[in-house]
Amino acid sequence: MSAPHERDTREQAVTDKVLASFADTPDARHRELFTALVRHAHAFVRETRLTEAEWEAAVGFLTRCGHITDDRRQEFILLSDVLGLSMQTITVNEPDDPRATEQTVFGPFFAEGAPEIELGGDAAQGAPGQPCWVSGTVRDVAGTPVAGAVLDVWEADEEGLYDVQHGDGRVSGRARLRTDDAGRYAFWCVTPTPYPIPHDGPVGDLLTAAARGPMRASHLHFMVTAPGLHRLVTHIFVRGDTYQDSDAVFGVKESLVVDFTEHSAGTAAPDGRTPDVAWTSADFDIVLAPEETA
Amino acid sequence: MSAPHERDTREQAVTDKVLASFADTPDARHRELFTALVRHAHAFVRETRLTEAEWEAAVGFLTRCGHITDDRRQEFILLSDVLGLSMQTITVNEPDDPRATEQTVFGPFFAEGAPEIELGGDAAQGAPGQPCWVSGTVRDVAGTPVAGAVLDVWEADEEGLYDVQHGDGRVSGRARLRTDDAGRYAFWCVTPTPYPIPHDGPVGDLLTAAARGPMRASHLHFMVTAPGLHRLVTHIFVRGDTYQDSDAVFGVKESLVVDFTEHSAGTAAPDGRTPDVAWTSADFDIVLAPEETA
Repeated sequence: MSAPHERDTREQAVTDKVLASFADTPDARHRELFTALVRHAHAFVRETRLTEAEWEAAVGFLTRCGHITDDRRQEFILLSDVLGLSMQTITVNEPDDPRATEQTVFGPFFAEGAPEIELGGDAAQGAPGQPCWVSGTVRDVAGTPVAGAVLDVWEADEEGLYDVQHGDGRVSGRARLRTDDAGRYAFWCVTPTPYPIPHDGPVGDLLTAAARGPMRASHLHFMVTAPGLHRLVTHIFVRGDTYQDSDAVFGVKESLVVDFTEHSAGTAAPDGRTPDVAWTSADFDIVLAPEETA
Repeated sequence: MSAPHERDTREQAVTDKVLASFADTPDARHRELFTALVRHAHAFVRETRLTEAEWEAAVGFLTRCGHITDDRRQEFILLSDVLGLSMQTITVNEPDDPRATEQTVFGPFFAEGAPEIELGGDAAQGAPGQPCWVSGTVRDVAGTPVAGAVLDVWEADEEGLYDVQHGDGRVSGRARLRTDDAGRYAFWCVTPTPYPIPHDGPVGDLLTAAARGPMRASHLHFMVTAPGLHRLVTHIFVRGDTYQDSDAVFGVKESLVVDFTEHSAGTAAPDGRTPDVAWTSADFDIVLAPEETA
């Protein structure tokens, strides 16, 4: 029998040979990424003593992810999400200023070409759900209001589906608007409700094997851009939501949990309307970090 | 600005939250694999300071791998191969007995249902190439010949293609035979020649980015099975081959490099035939490890 150190030497020799093969990668950043990938992937195989059957299962899993992915379904993003890799990537790229609003995952459901609405307009665009008024001010880290900041907002409807998931071509639950001269914004949408990530594929099987649920904490997406400022991609979460501590993609941050105040039918809203159903309202002030210089 | 340790704490918190989500995985081995995957994948993102654009490129790369994979093309195996992960998996599972013949990668081109041939029969089955006579003895680690061991052998033809890659339904360059009572085997095939792995897809792009070539060192595949003995999956390589030191999948091991002796046309072969073209011969004795007890 070979001694443990001989086994170690034999395995390290494989890793070293692979690392050497990437040593002449012309682009320095590619070289850094390829060699780090090799180091960690080889360490994973060696530490876990991965069996050949497990290796085959991994190939089969990735193949299934590839085959279920199409224009409307992105299983590799879901995989990254449930492994917390999307959130970790966001975190390492977070602007290094504690005054700025925190970021969270982008998710797979943003779509270009959302309708532009006026301040106080309706981002629901017919999406079913309880009316919700969201407002706030966009500022820079010095506290100066940002006029003309572009806000993209998007969300699932009360059926738990984004417009694109309905597959009938509808455009709803998404809009673009701009802050006024005082940096203020406001819009109607629907009160966010929890929904499952798509879990009828390999990523769903992974969650099942881990005894984890597919639910996302209720949230509303924001992307906020303004010249000279760092693009903000975030959500707001509904305080008290059931899935706050078990969000399937690890997106919840305490600073992004917001009170959604409930109002009974007939109560006047800030824009003077009097909804004939119960509605909610949320305030969310946004602080944009300066654009980072490379 | 936050201090480096605050950044570190923030990032570690994400990893810890993800690890905690896998803590209740019912199957202990799944739990071990999932948590090791999370640890290494998060460390990769943190160490490399992976950008969001790079993360998107990785998602796009895996998507392309998935979409090019079908019944005849397996891009995820190619990816594992060129990252040396296939070879590392083989290595950690190698029987722990230095007397046993070493293993190498299985590759994606084995096919069930190869023709059964007699000892001394023709595994080329019409594959174009130079005739080659391969012979040897199969023994266990105590040196006892193994009678009736099943040998599967397969190889690319001189065009650099396996039968399945031709896509015309041909079955050639593969066969199954059994050792005689003295553990001996012998067959005709074609002299192995170098060939590229499929490199017109994302894995080819990765090789290009790394300034690496797609060529495999010339080789002939063996899979040898016998009751009570560990299944051997290996190749023999042609000594002096150009790609011995740059095999795209890191499969070469010194103990598997064999002399292919050249013979001129008209020289009599061991089975009494006199090929009317130049031919080669190779001897390769095989030692099978005992079946491992779990």
